Parts: sequence; C-alpha cells; structure tokens
Amino acid sequence: MDYDRLKERYSKFLSKRDERRELVSFWDGDLPSKDLICLEAGMPNEKLFPIKAIDLHLVDQPFDDGDGDKVSITRYEQPAEMPIARAFQYSEVRGMLPMVSFCKRIVEMTNRPVYDNWDVLLSNGSSDSMFKVFETLCDESSTVLMEEFTFSPVVSNVTSTGASCVPLKMHLTTDPRDQGIDVEYMEQLLDNWHELEEYKRLNKPKLLYTIVTGQNPTGMTLSMQKRQQIYRLAQKHDLIIVEDDPYGYLTFPPYDPENPMKNVYTDTENPMSIDEYLQKRLIKSFLTLDTDARVIRLETFSKMYAPGLRLSFIVANKFIIDRLLNLSEITTRAPSGASQAIVYATVKAMAARETAYQDEQDRMFYGWIRWAMKLAGTYTHRRNVAFKALYETDAYKSHLFSVLEPSAGMFINVKINWPHAPPDDMRRSLDQLDTVLVKNGVKVVLGYKLAVDQSFSIDSSGFLRFTVAYASHDEQLIEGCHRIGNGIQEFLGY
Amino acid sequence: MDYDRLKERYSKFLSKRDERRELVSFWDGDLPSKDLICLEAGMPNEKLFPIKAIDLHLVDQPFDDGDGDKVSITRYEQPAEMPIARAFQYSEVRGMLPMVSFCKRIVEMTNRPVYDNWDVLLSNGSSDSMFKVFETLCDESSTVLMEEFTFSPVVSNVTSTGASCVPLKMHLTTDPRDQGIDVEYMEQLLDNWHELEEYKRLNKPKLLYTIVTGQNPTGMTLSMQKRQQIYRLAQKHDLIIVEDDPYGYLTFPPYDPENPMKNVYTDTENPMSIDEYLQKRLIKSFLTLDTDARVIRLETFSKMYAPGLRLSFIVANKFIIDRLLNLSEITTRAPSGASQAIVYATVKAMAARETAYQDEQDRMFYGWIRWAMKLAGTYTHRRNVAFKALYETDAYKSHLFSVLEPSAGMFINVKINWPHAPPDDMRRSLDQLDTVLVKNGVKVVLGYKLAVDQSFSIDSSGFLRFTVAYASHDEQLIEGCHRIGNGIQEFLGY
Repeated sequence: MDYDRLKERYSKFLSKRDERRELVSFWDGDLPSKDLICLEAGMPNEKLFPIKAIDLHLVDQPFDDGDGDKVSITRYEQPAEMPIARAFQYSEVRGMLPMVSFCKRIVEMTNRPVYDNWDVLLSNGSSDSMFKVFETLCDESSTVLMEEFTFSPVVSNVTSTGASCVPLKMHLTTDPRDQGIDVEYMEQLLDNWHELEEYKRLNKPKLLYTIVTGQNPTGMTLSMQKRQQIYRLAQKHDLIIVEDDPYGYLTFPPYDPENPMKNVYTDTENPMSIDEYLQKRLIKSFLTLDTDARVIRLETFSKMYAPGLRLSFIVANKFIIDRLLNLSEITTRAPSGASQAIVYATVKAMAARETAYQDEQDRMFYGWIRWAMKLAGTYTHRRNVAFKALYETDAYKSHLFSVLEPSAGMFINVKINWPHAPPDDMRRSLDQLDTVLVKNGVKVVLGYKLAVDQSFSIDSSGFLRFTVAYASHDEQLIEGCHRIGNGIQEFLGY
Repeated sequence: MDYDRLKERYSKFLSKRDERRELVSFWDGDLPSKDLICLEAGMPNEKLFPIKAIDLHLVDQPFDDGDGDKVSITRYEQPAEMPIARAFQYSEVRGMLPMVSFCKRIVEMTNRPVYDNWDVLLSNGSSDSMFKVFETLCDESSTVLMEEFTFSPVVSNVTSTGASCVPLKMHLTTDPRDQGIDVEYMEQLLDNWHELEEYKRLNKPKLLYTIVTGQNPTGMTLSMQKRQQIYRLAQKHDLIIVEDDPYGYLTFPPYDPENPMKNVYTDTENPMSIDEYLQKRLIKSFLTLDTDARVIRLETFSKMYAPGLRLSFIVANKFIIDRLLNLSEITTRAPSGASQAIVYATVKAMAARETAYQDEQDRMFYGWIRWAMKLAGTYTHRRNVAFKALYETDAYKSHLFSVLEPSAGMFINVKINWPHAPPDDMRRSLDQLDTVLVKNGVKVVLGYKLAVDQSFSIDSSGFLRFTVAYASHDEQLIEGCHRIGNGIQEFLGY
C-alpha cells in the first residue's frame, strides 16, 4: 500500500487534536555540505559536555554477580555509530538511526509485517507510546475495546482524550486454544452494536487495545487462531488493533506437575537453540496477519533491559508513524540518548559473541535474542518455583484456590474458590482477604482493581495477581506463595 | 498560601482536558513494612538487568581532553541514593527524590520564591515541560502572549491545544535597561484588550510565555525593573507567567571593543568568586517577585550538561505541579533514570571538590555552579571571538550590518542595515541573502522564520541568528563570522 493510499485509508481514524497539530519550524532541512559552517541550531559542541566517556559493565546471565563484558561509549569512537558526540546531542526525534535500524531488525526477524510500508518510532516507554497512540487516534467521539481486565492506567490514557472504554469478556482458562478475549462475545458486540441499549450513547468502536501475550493481569495469551478471528473482525468492522506486547519474549513452556522444576530453556543436556526459541516459543504478532496495515504494535525495553531507561518502540504503517512522530516533535522529542546509547552499546557487546553470523545486523539481533532467551529461562524457573510452592499449600490441596496458569509474562493469578457462590460484595470480600494477606506478610493486587468496569466483571474478579519478577531469590518467592496459601485458608475460615 | 487556597485560586486556569484527566490506579500506596513480601508491581528484579555498573569519565573544563574525575554507578552502592537498582528500575514519576532535592536546592540558592508552597517536577527536556504546561493550562478558549520573536516550536505547542498566540513587541537594543518585551505595548494591549479590533475573536490572554534571559533568538535579557513592571501587569490582568530560562547561567559581561578578548570569568589575576557569579552575573527569576504563586519556571540540563539526556525541571506552586504530575503519570512517567543517574553522579563528583562547604547539599550546589561558571566563561570567550571577527569585516566597517549584542545565551543576531528602507518583500530579500550566505559557506537562521506572526514583525525581522555554541574551535567561528560579513557585502552589492 503506498503512502497516499495509507493516508487516504487511515486519515479518518485521526483525532480532532491531531488535525490541528501543525509544526512550526525554523529549519529548512538542508543537509550541510562539507565546507558549510553550520551556525543554525542552538546545539552545544560536545566538548561543552562534562562527560567524555562511559564504561558499561555487563553481566552474562540474569542474577549473575560475576564480571561479563565491559563496553565503552566514548566521545567520538565507540560505538562508531553512536558515540557521546551524537547520543548526548540533540538527535533524531524518531530515535537515532542505528537504534531504529536495530528495532526494525527485531520486527523483521520475529514478526515481519505482511505489507511493506511500515516503520518504527522510538518512544519513552510503553506508557508514552500508549499516550501518543491514543492522543493521535482518539477524541470525544471514539470508543475503544479492551480486555475486561487490563493494565488499568491505560483506561486513564483513553478517557483523558475524551474517548470511552468498553470491556470485552475474557475466557480465564488454562486451555491455550481458548484463553483470552471471548471472540464470540466480541463478534456479537460489534455485529449488534447499534441495537445495544447499554452502549447507545457511544459511537461504534474504532480501536481494539489488547495485551496479546502473557496478558497483564491474567497471564493469558491469544492463540494464533484467535488472532486470525479477531483480525477478521477488525477487518469487518474496520478497527485499528493496538497490540501491546511487553512480555512476548517471556513465554512459558507447559508446567509439568510431575517434574516441577523442568525448564526447557535451561536444560543442559538438550539446550534450546535460538531458532527453536524463535519458531516455537514466540507467538506471532498481529503484524504477521496484517494485510491492511491496521495494526499498531508496542514493544518496550522495560522488561527486557530495564524499566528506568524509559525506552520503547512503536511499529505501524508509515502514515500513522508520521502522525505519531509529529506529536513527538512537540512533546518528548527524542527518547534519552543516554538510554539509547546504553542499550545500543550493550547489544553491540552481545553481538560480538555471535561469531556464527556474518552480518553485523544479524549478530546484533541474535545476541539480543540470546539474552531474551536467558530471561525467558529465568522467568520460567520462577514460574516453576511459584507453582510448586502454591501447589504444596494446604489451601490448594483443600481446593480453596486454583491457579490461572499463565502462558507468558510476569504475573500469576490465584482464583479464589468461594465456598458457595461468589460473594455478594466482591470488593469488600477481596479487601478483607487483602487485610488477612498483609497480616500474613504478603502484598498482592486484587482482581477487581484491574477491571475496566468493575460491575461488568464483578463475578470474575475474585482473583489475586502477583508477580514472579521482583523477588530477590527463590526462597522469598516460595515464602510469599506460602503466605498467600495461608492467608486464603485463614480468610475462608478453615 | 496553603494548598486549598492555591487550588481555589488557580483551578480556573486549568484546561478542559486537565479537568477530565482522572488517574486509574491499582495501587493503594501502602508502604511495605520490613517483613512484607511485595509481589504487587510488575517490576523486574535489578539482577534481571544486563548491566551491573557504569563508570563515568568526566572532564574538568569545557573543551578539556584530559582525564578528570572518574565516578561509578553500581548495582547497590554508588551513588548511595541512586544506584542502578533504583535508577534503572521504575521510579518516582516526579523524578527520583535525590534529583528533585538537588533541583530544589538550585532554586533555593539562585531564585528562592517569595512564597513557600512551591515544588519541582522533573521532565524530559524543556520541550516536554512546555507541552505539559500548555496541555494543562490551555484549550480552545485560551490566549497566550509571547515575545514577537521566539523559539518558534513553542507556537506549535500552544496552537495544538487549540489556544492562540499573540505576539508582544520587543525592543531590540543593546541597552540592558530597555531590551526585550515592550512593556508599554504590553500594558496598552491588556488595558484595551476588549476594544481591539484585531483580537476581537480571542479571549483576554491568561498566560505570558517569555524566555527571560539571553532570549532565543534575540539574546535580549529582561532587566529586573522590566520584570517588576511585567509582574505588576500580570497581577493586574491575572496572567500566569511561564518563564523559560535555558540560558540563564550563561550571562555575558559587557563587551569591551578596546580589549575584545577580556573575559571576567577566566581572568587569572582576579578570578571571579562563586558568590560574585551568583550575585552579579545571574539575573533573578520572576520567582523572586512572585508573591501570588503565578510563575512557572522552566529549567533544563540540555545546555548545562547535554541535550541528549532529555532532562529538565519545572518550578511552580504545588497545586500546578500536582496537575502537571498528573499528566506525567499517563504520558512520560519518570524521565530516563539513566539520564538522572548520570547527572546525579556527575554532580556528586563535582561536590567532592568543594571541601570549603560542610553540608553535602551545599557541596553539590557549589560544585555544579562552578561548572556553570566555567561554561559561562567559555560562552563569553566565544562571544568575544565572534564579535571581534564580525567587527573586523569590511561589511561592518561600511555599516552594512549592526550586531544586536546579546546579554546571555548562545545566539548572536546580525541586523542588516538596508541601504534605503526595509525591503518591500522582507522574506524574499532574506531568502536571497540566505542563498548568498550558503554560497559563501555559512548557514544561519533568518529572522522572519523566528517571528510568531510574520506580518506583525515583518519590519523588524531583517536579521540573521547564528550560534556560538556548536563550532568546533575558535577558527571555525571566526571563519563563519567572516563569511557572514562577506555574504552581506556581496548581497548588498558593494
């Protein structure tokens, strides 16, 4: 689809605010020739910075305390494409080109879109990405569909544009074919939108926001079959799909209760190859189905490198990327060059070990993916530790709770098996349970707090979300899980 | 003024968009007790980051190639208040507290507000600060006053909220008492607003945006007397003053044509003391006059450390800071922790040399200000070099241009002395001059491109802006200035 066609096709999705966003610039974009002395922009010479080099001390493995590679960022030489003179200077708002190329390579190698005219924009963390996407696409006239339980701050992102959120029923099940968005519900909702009493004040939805893999909070992953069904619905009803995927690299193999510590990622006898990881363990993005250029994918370095970097990227068709870039120009401008240089120099160091690949871009990709695989192995280990600890509690053995086994990500959800029906006042019951849990020394998040619409989801919100990501060591995680079991047992009065 | 009074007083300034911005959170803000295992937030343990330490190699002086201090940021120990485990983690949206404290100390020591209930919010560079301020205060009903020549992207910031920009006449003069905003014009404009045909479609202005010191592009600085007059006008007409001050530390002593390279900052016989710099060379902010809490001040580390850090801060009354923080929560969240840690560790290293001061906070402040003084000395040197080079051209000696001598900052403006009246088509004439300058090998910015309203300012826009900040060495700057002179001479046909 050429640019003009994209523009023609997707302009109607733009918000009123986007329409009036015109950039005023005093640059004419001339490229400096060799002999031209450029005295235009208020850029301080790099020798006016108080810093001339940075050394990064890396680690080889998660939780490794030993010395790994040391890599330097110098004023002019290293990395050749992104030294301090560039990274600490004003730089391209879309991200420095070597970082943009690296992110594009990630997309090409893992989730190559089925159309050509796509692009990448770096941003300041997925929260910033979401803001920019909703600000560009939504206004008072917009309705956004999303999973009934979600990363709840996104609701603020949507409603602050004036738009409305509509929850989609989910199947909370361990069946990998069935978990996640209830596609039939979604189909009925869209097919019958104009007859629905409940939503009669709202326009028909134009966006679906979904956390596709290891969903927050439920840990559910949309199967490829469901992705295909949902994509067809998006085509039928002309929806843009905003696919948020912070956890996509952290997928879990099935848990084996007979061999709870089994971990295909770290099996020394039969080590997983990178290709196996890429082909079998990663779930393909909606981008790979996206014949219409209607998918906006959000990735982030927060979970794969470090959240404090505030570094993420957005994949979308070139027209939409241009509109998002336009917003970046007057808001954040480029993400931190320090963050970009730290990630880039780290990936270059990882690349240096990938001697099996000829091409530097390939080495960078595979070096980075090897790190992703190591993280996935660590998260799988923690999943194993947590499951084992939960399943050995008396509360579990007495069927007081079940575990909504996650297929990826950072979160595990414990579903309370209420002795009779769900409580009349779910919020109050969960708040009381929370008090007991805190008394027992463990803090989790209550299901109802993660619902887009608490009354819509009240019956299914009787769960607790906790993370395996933050504990300092296995023992702390085990103790936390035991306290969850004990707290539930105490609360339910057994 | 207590918080409720601030809220009552300043709520009317908030935009419609601010009003509907409600945060949805799943946190209850409980502080973890010692024995509580917190499994709430999706924060990766710091040992899941691929980096465990960073060494910074600093320089002692601008343009110094030698080795200065080396300072480390480690996983847990250094800096004690901001190691990697904190700086690379999700952190406080308002900025990490040690950085917030440092910024507050800067404000207290340089421009202590005359009221108590003020606060600081870190943001991602002054462009981001501006966006957040205008987004929070402006909508379709708002009118914003600003200098007729300004950092033109700010016009996009204002108009994208739906608000309108109204230019204020400036006095472009070297007289330090008279330069900058034409206060009489401003007074007439506000006093007679409702009778003005030209602006009858616009509401009365509620904001003044001004670059107070070393204004971009003019290099003008508002005298204290003018600041007092403008503040009284702001009181009379109930304006919020948005004071943008990226260049405030880079003030120039008067130029001495008899002794062009004289530089009070670097005079080895009579070195300037820090107190002299603070008392005599820095101009006091509007904050120091702000009995009503109506001033919002924007500072940035872009010019004082490095632009690529994307790190800045906003000073305002606590109510307004809360509203800005509310916007940060759903947009950028915290600025890059890597950027914050780099600045913080650098300042700690600078502090270690300030042994004359007992208090660590004082050492940090004075260490930083000593760096600011060195930068001011470098910029003064470059101003001297550029002036000398301009004044020795034949074009200057033939009165073909004059120099609008700047009192601070990065920019010098060369005013064309048109042989007769200003040209009928100023844009076209300047564009033609630009072509000649580029042919002569120098690129500058044309005055009309920096006007808020080109037709309003057309007669006074016959100038060229260039920067002393970016040249690699004095010789390049000298050559650039000579080319400007030669280009003007060729263009005017002498």
